[in-house]
Amino acid sequence: MRAAVLREYGEPLRIEERDRPTAAPHGVVVEVEACGVCRSDWHAWRGHGEWADDDVPLGQVLGHEPAGRVVEVGDRVTEFAVGDDVAVPFCLGDGSCPRCLSGHGNRCENGYALGFEPAVPGAFAECVAVPHADYNVTHRPESVSARAAAALGCRFMTAFHALAHRAPLGAGDWVAVHGCGGVGLSAVQVASALGARVVAVDIRDDALDAAARMGAAETVNASETDAAAEVQKRVGGAHVSLDALGSAETCRASVESLRSGGTHVQLGLTTDAEAGEVRLPTDYMTRHELSFLGSRGMSPTSYDELFALIDAGEVDPGALVTRELSLDEVPERLAAMDDYGTSGVEVVTEF
Amino acid sequence: MRAAVLREYGEPLRIEERDRPTAAPHGVVVEVEACGVCRSDWHAWRGHGEWADDDVPLGQVLGHEPAGRVVEVGDRVTEFAVGDDVAVPFCLGDGSCPRCLSGHGNRCENGYALGFEPAVPGAFAECVAVPHADYNVTHRPESVSARAAAALGCRFMTAFHALAHRAPLGAGDWVAVHGCGGVGLSAVQVASALGARVVAVDIRDDALDAAARMGAAETVNASETDAAAEVQKRVGGAHVSLDALGSAETCRASVESLRSGGTHVQLGLTTDAEAGEVRLPTDYMTRHELSFLGSRGMSPTSYDELFALIDAGEVDPGALVTRELSLDEVPERLAAMDDYGTSGVEVVTEF
Amino acid sequence: MRAAVLREYGEPLRIEERDRPTAAPHGVVVEVEACGVCRSDWHAWRGHGEWADDDVPLGQVLGHEPAGRVVEVGDRVTEFAVGDDVAVPFCLGDGSCPRCLSGHGNRCENGYALGFEPAVPGAFAECVAVPHADYNVTHRPESVSARAAAALGCRFMTAFHALAHRAPLGAGDWVAVHGCGGVGLSAVQVASALGARVVAVDIRDDALDAAARMGAAETVNASETDAAAEVQKRVGGAHVSLDALGSAETCRASVESLRSGGTHVQLGLTTDAEAGEVRLPTDYMTRHELSFLGSRGMSPTSYDELFALIDAGEVDPGALVTRELSLDEVPERLAAMDDYGTSGVEVVTEF
Amino acid sequence: MRAAVLREYGEPLRIEERDRPTAAPHGVVVEVEACGVCRSDWHAWRGHGEWADDDVPLGQVLGHEPAGRVVEVGDRVTEFAVGDDVAVPFCLGDGSCPRCLSGHGNRCENGYALGFEPAVPGAFAECVAVPHADYNVTHRPESVSARAAAALGCRFMTAFHALAHRAPLGAGDWVAVHGCGGVGLSAVQVASALGARVVAVDIRDDALDAAARMGAAETVNASETDAAAEVQKRVGGAHVSLDALGSAETCRASVESLRSGGTHVQLGLTTDAEAGEVRLPTDYMTRHELSFLGSRGMSPTSYDELFALIDAGEVDPGALVTRELSLDEVPERLAAMDDYGTSGVEVVTEF
Ligand SMILES: [Zn+2]
Ligand SMILES: [Zn+2]
Ligand SMILES: [Zn+2]
Ligand SMILES: [Zn+2]
Ligand SMILES: [Zn+2]
Ligand SMILES: [Zn+2]
Ligand SMILES: [Zn+2]
Ligand SMILES: [Zn+2]
Repeated sequence: MRAAVLREYGEPLRIEERDRPTAAPHGVVVEVEACGVCRSDWHAWRGHGEWADDDVPLGQVLGHEPAGRVVEVGDRVTEFAVGDDVAVPFCLGDGSCPRCLSGHGNRCENGYALGFEPAVPGAFAECVAVPHADYNVTHRPESVSARAAAALGCRFMTAFHALAHRAPLGAGDWVAVHGCGGVGLSAVQVASALGARVVAVDIRDDALDAAARMGAAETVNASETDAAAEVQKRVGGAHVSLDALGSAETCRASVESLRSGGTHVQLGLTTDAEAGEVRLPTDYMTRHELSFLGSRGMSPTSYDELFALIDAGEVDPGALVTRELSLDEVPERLAAMDDYGTSGVEVVTEF
Repeated sequence: MRAAVLREYGEPLRIEERDRPTAAPHGVVVEVEACGVCRSDWHAWRGHGEWADDDVPLGQVLGHEPAGRVVEVGDRVTEFAVGDDVAVPFCLGDGSCPRCLSGHGNRCENGYALGFEPAVPGAFAECVAVPHADYNVTHRPESVSARAAAALGCRFMTAFHALAHRAPLGAGDWVAVHGCGGVGLSAVQVASALGARVVAVDIRDDALDAAARMGAAETVNASETDAAAEVQKRVGGAHVSLDALGSAETCRASVESLRSGGTHVQLGLTTDAEAGEVRLPTDYMTRHELSFLGSRGMSPTSYDELFALIDAGEVDPGALVTRELSLDEVPERLAAMDDYGTSGVEVVTEF
Repeated sequence: MRAAVLREYGEPLRIEERDRPTAAPHGVVVEVEACGVCRSDWHAWRGHGEWADDDVPLGQVLGHEPAGRVVEVGDRVTEFAVGDDVAVPFCLGDGSCPRCLSGHGNRCENGYALGFEPAVPGAFAECVAVPHADYNVTHRPESVSARAAAALGCRFMTAFHALAHRAPLGAGDWVAVHGCGGVGLSAVQVASALGARVVAVDIRDDALDAAARMGAAETVNASETDAAAEVQKRVGGAHVSLDALGSAETCRASVESLRSGGTHVQLGLTTDAEAGEVRLPTDYMTRHELSFLGSRGMSPTSYDELFALIDAGEVDPGALVTRELSLDEVPERLAAMDDYGTSGVEVVTEF
Repeated sequence: MRAAVLREYGEPLRIEERDRPTAAPHGVVVEVEACGVCRSDWHAWRGHGEWADDDVPLGQVLGHEPAGRVVEVGDRVTEFAVGDDVAVPFCLGDGSCPRCLSGHGNRCENGYALGFEPAVPGAFAECVAVPHADYNVTHRPESVSARAAAALGCRFMTAFHALAHRAPLGAGDWVAVHGCGGVGLSAVQVASALGARVVAVDIRDDALDAAARMGAAETVNASETDAAAEVQKRVGGAHVSLDALGSAETCRASVESLRSGGTHVQLGLTTDAEAGEVRLPTDYMTRHELSFLGSRGMSPTSYDELFALIDAGEVDPGALVTRELSLDEVPERLAAMDDYGTSGVEVVTEF
C-alpha cells in the first residue's frame, strides 16, 4: 500500500510502498477514507521535540487523524466487524490502566500517539492498524462522514475536551481563543455551542473572518494591537482563554487575557523557539487566582459526547475543511505550514 | 396607586387603591412597567401551602415578576439612581448573611418572597418597594426590555439556575423537561443554549409545539403514553430531567426518565393534592445512583450571567410572552390557570 | 467444598457440599479466607426485593464480602497469579462498558451482584469465582489482612464512596449518620478521616457508644427524641446526612436533618414495609435546595483510594469487626438481625 | 500609640508614636493582642514588588496577621460591639462587589491588603482600624486564643484555602509541600486533617522535623537530592503539590513533583531574583494535563470553615508558634529572615 514516510526532517515526506498492516488480536485494521493534515504533523516533520527527547523517528509513517472502514478484526475484538464505519483518535490507550478506566485514556500509562511512534504507523496510508480497538475505535454515526470525522481529530476533539471537560465553562462566559487555525476554529464552534461568547485572536484577517463566521462575537488582530490588553478592554477579561497555537507569545497573551479567577487552557505545543518552556507571570497568577490547565487530545471514551453535540446541530466539524487532498499533495501542504500558509483543516481523501 | 389584592382564596383579586410605597434606607421604589403572571400567583390565590403553614395571607398585593424604572432611592443605596432601568427578582436577600455572601441569596437566611408576604407587597401595582436594593436589584441592559425582563422572572431565572448551577449538565446531554408552561419552555431554551438536547413532555399538543419551536428535539405527549418509558425508549434515558410543573405524576415521571447516574431537578411546588410530599422510588434511586436536587429561583447575584446568555443570542425570554395584559385582567387570567388554560408567559404591561 | 445456601426465605441457610468453581478465561477463583455477614444478606434471606422483581433466587450461595487468595487464574487474566492476596468487591463490572470505563463500575451495564444472583455464587463458601478479574479484583497490600478486607465490603466501601465521591463534603462540615450498624460506623470513620464532624444517630446506646469511639462528636438516641429536630438544634443542621439503614423513618429523618443547601445520601435499601418507596418532602427540598443522592457500593477501580486512606492511618476497618464466625454459625447470625441483635461487623473466618 | 513603621527598605523598622486610628462608619478599631510576623512583611521591608509597581510605600505601618478585641465601632456596623474578641484577615474586601458576594472576597475588586498600603495601616501597633467590618471581621470562638488566631493569618488561612477550596484534593491523595515555613507547616496540618498523605520538602532538617511532627508521612531534604525526582520515586508523584515558598526553584520542583493529571498550587510570591516570573515546562504540563493554580489568602467569609476544622480537633494553628515577641523585637526578627533564620510562626504579643 502507499504511505507518506518521514525520511529526513524538513525534507519532503516520501510516498512509498509498504506492506499492508495486520491486526493484533486486540486490534483492527482500518482502510483510511480520510485523514486530516495538522500542525502536529508539521512539528514532527520539522523535528521539533528534540529538547524533550520526543522527536519523531525517521522512517515513521505520519498521519494521525483518520476515519475509514474496518477491513480486518483481531480475535479478541468484540465490538467491531469488517465493514464498520469508524473514527479513530490519535491518542490511543491500552484500555486497562487506571487512567483508561477512569475516563482519562488520553493520558494512558501505556498509551500510543498514532503516527508519531514506530509501534503505531500513521494514517497517511491506505490502511492503518489500531491496537486495543474495543477501547480506542468508535462506531461512526451515519450522520458523520469520513471527511467530517477526519476533521474531528486531533483538533476538534482537543478543543472539545478542553472546553467540555477541563475548563469550568459557565453560561454566557467570555472565551478568548488565541490562534484561529484548526484547533482555534474548533474551539470557536464548541464554545459557542456551549452558550459562551467568543473573542477570537489571530494575526491573519482571513482567520479572524473564519472565526466570525463560526460564531465569534469579537475578533482581535494581534498584529495591530496588544491582544491581551484588547481582550481586557473589550470584554473585561476572559473567563476562559485558550492558547490554540503554542508559542511564548500566544501563551502569555492568553494568560494575560483573563479576568480575576479566570482559567487558561494550554492546547498547543511549542516550537523549537521555546523548546517546551514559557516564562509565566506567577505572582500575577497567584494574586488573581488564575488557573493554567494543560489539556491533551481527548479520551477515546468521549466520542459519544462529541457525536451528541454534532447530533444536536450545535457544531459542524465539516465546516472546518477548506481543502481535500490526495496523498501525493501531503509533502507540499506540510511545507506550506512553515509560514502559516494554510487555513482551517485540510483533509487527505485520495490515497 | 392601583394594586391587585388577594382578599379571599379563590375569589377574584380585587383592584384597589393603595398608598404608594416609600423606600427604606437600603431600598428603592420601582415604577412597574411590566410584571409576569405566574402559576405561583395561582398557588397563592388558591391558598395552597396551608399544609406547610405557608399560605399567602389575605390582604397581600400579589405580583412577583416585575421590571421597571427606579423612582425613589434610599439614603444608603449606592448603586442606583432615579430613572435607572432595572430588573427585580422574586427571591430577595438581605445581602449580608453567609448565604447571600456565597452566591446563594435565593436561600437567604432572612430573605423575602416578593409579593407573597406582608413585608414585601407585590408588583401587580403601579409601584413596588424593593429592600436591600444594592444586593437585589439589577441594572437592565438596553437590549432587555421591561417586557422581556418580566418574562425572566421567576420562571426563566428558575430554569436558568437549575440548568446552569444545579444540574451537572454536559455537552450534548439529553434533558427531559416535564411540563411545558413558562418554566418548562424556559428550560427548553436554556438547555438548548448550553449545548444539550431536549425531550419535552406535556399533555397538551400546543405546549409541545411551542417546545419544538424553542428547540426541543423530541416531544412526548404524556396523555397518550407512559412518559418515562417513552423517554427511556427514545433517548436511552435522560442525563438530566426537570419537573417544571409540580405534581406527584410529573415528579415521578421525571425521576423515572433518567438514565443510570442521572439527575432530576425539582422546580415546581406541588398542589394541595400532594400537600408538599411525593412518594419516590428510593431503592431504584440508590441502585442507579440517581440524584434528586431541589432548586429555588435564582440568586440576585446571577443576573449578569443570564444577561450574558441573552447577549450571546442564545436565549430569548421575550419569545415566551404570549399575551400582554392590563392590571384589570389579572383576576381573570389567574382563574384561567385552574384548568391550565394559559400557555407561555402572560405579562401585565398596563397598570 | 462447603457453602451456605439459601433454600427457603426465612429458613436457616443450609450448609451444603458444592463443586469447587472453575475460572472463566477472564476470571479467577479465590479461596475465601474471610467474608463479612451483612444486612444485605439478611434482606436476601428474608426475600425482600420481591416488589422490584429483585428477590434473590432460592438455591443461591450467599456471601458478598470476601477476601482471600487466588487459587486459579483464567487464560486471559494478566494482573493476577496463583497465591496473590486479594480483595473482591460485591458489585462486579464487565470492565468494558462506558460506565466501567469512566470510573462507575459499580453501575456496570452488565454488572453482577456477587452472591445475589445465580451467575455469581457467593462467598459463604470455601472458594468463590470472580469474573473479569483484571477489572474487579484488587491486590491487597500487606498492611490489610483478609479479615480487615472483609470488613471493607460492602459496608466500608459503600460509606467511603458516598462520602469521598458522591457527597460534596467540605472541611469541618457536620455529617449526620442515621443508623450506626456496619455502614454507619464506617461512615463515622470516613467522615472523621476527611476532616468532617459527625453527629451519630441510632436507637441503641451501644451503637452510639461505638460511634463515639470511632470519632463521632455528637450522638443522638432517636428513640428518645425527634432525631432531625435534635440534629438541627445541636449543630444547626447537617451539611451532609446519610441514611445508613434504609427505612422510611431514617430516610425522612436524614433529609430533615439537613441545613439549607445540604445533601442527603441514601445508602440503605428499604425493607418490605416500604417496598422500595419513601414519601419525601419535595416542596421543602425545593425551597431549601436540598439534594438527595442515591449511592451504591463503590467502583472496583476505587480500591486504591481506600487503601491509601488506610495507609494514611486515617481509618481502621478492622476496628469494626466485633466477632469472628465459622461458616456453620452464619444461619444463626443472619436470624439475629431480625431484631437488630448484632452490632458492628461479623466476619466468617472458618469455612 | 506605638507602631512599627517602614522608613527605608532594608533598614530596621522604626518604632514610632502614632495617633490611634478611628473607626469609619462601616469599620471597627481593634486593640491588637497578637500579630504574626511573616515572610510577606519581609518582602515588604526588602522593597520587593518594584517590578510590578507593587512595592510597599515608605511610611507604612506593617503587620497583617492580627487578632484582638474591638474597642470602637462605626455607626453602620451591626455585627460587632466593643469588647468582642475577633480575628482579622489580611485581604480585606468591600463586601459589596460581585466577588465579595460570591465567596471570593480575597479577590475583591476594591480590596485592601492590610498593612501593605496607606489606606490600611498595619497591626504592628497597639490598635488597627478595619474597614467594612461586618464583612471582614469575624467573631473568635472562645476556643481560639488571640495568639492562635494570629497564627492563622495569613499563613494558615492561605494553606487552608489552597487545599480546601482550590485544589481538588481526594481521600488518601499524596500532597507534596515545598517549603516548610509557616505556610508549609500549615499545609501539612491541613492536608493531614483532610485525609491526605504528605511528603514535605525543605532544605533544612529542623523544618522537616517540624513537618514530620505535624503529620508528614515522608520528608525530602532538597539540598541533598533532586526533590521532584525523589517525590516521583517515593510516592509515584503527588496528586497535589504546593509551592509554599515562592522561588523559581521551588515552583519548578513542585510542578515536576506531580503525577499525570496532578495539580500544583502556587502560594508563595517570588523574590526579586524572579521578579514575579517563572519559566514553566508548558509542553510537559500539556501532555500530562497538569494544572497550575494561583491561590491568594482566603476569603473573609471562610473563617467559619476554618474554625470548624479547629473545633473538629483536626488542626492546631497554635502549634505553629515558635516564639512570642515584643513589638521592639520585630525589626530584628524581620532581618533574621534574610537567611531563613526563623522557623514556624513568630507572634508579637507585647505592644
Ligand atoms: Zn491506559
Ligand atoms: Zn492533529
Ligand atoms: Zn441573606
Ligand atoms: Zn413566578
Ligand atoms: Zn461495565
Ligand atoms: Zn454487605
Ligand atoms: Zn469586593
Ligand atoms: Zn503573612
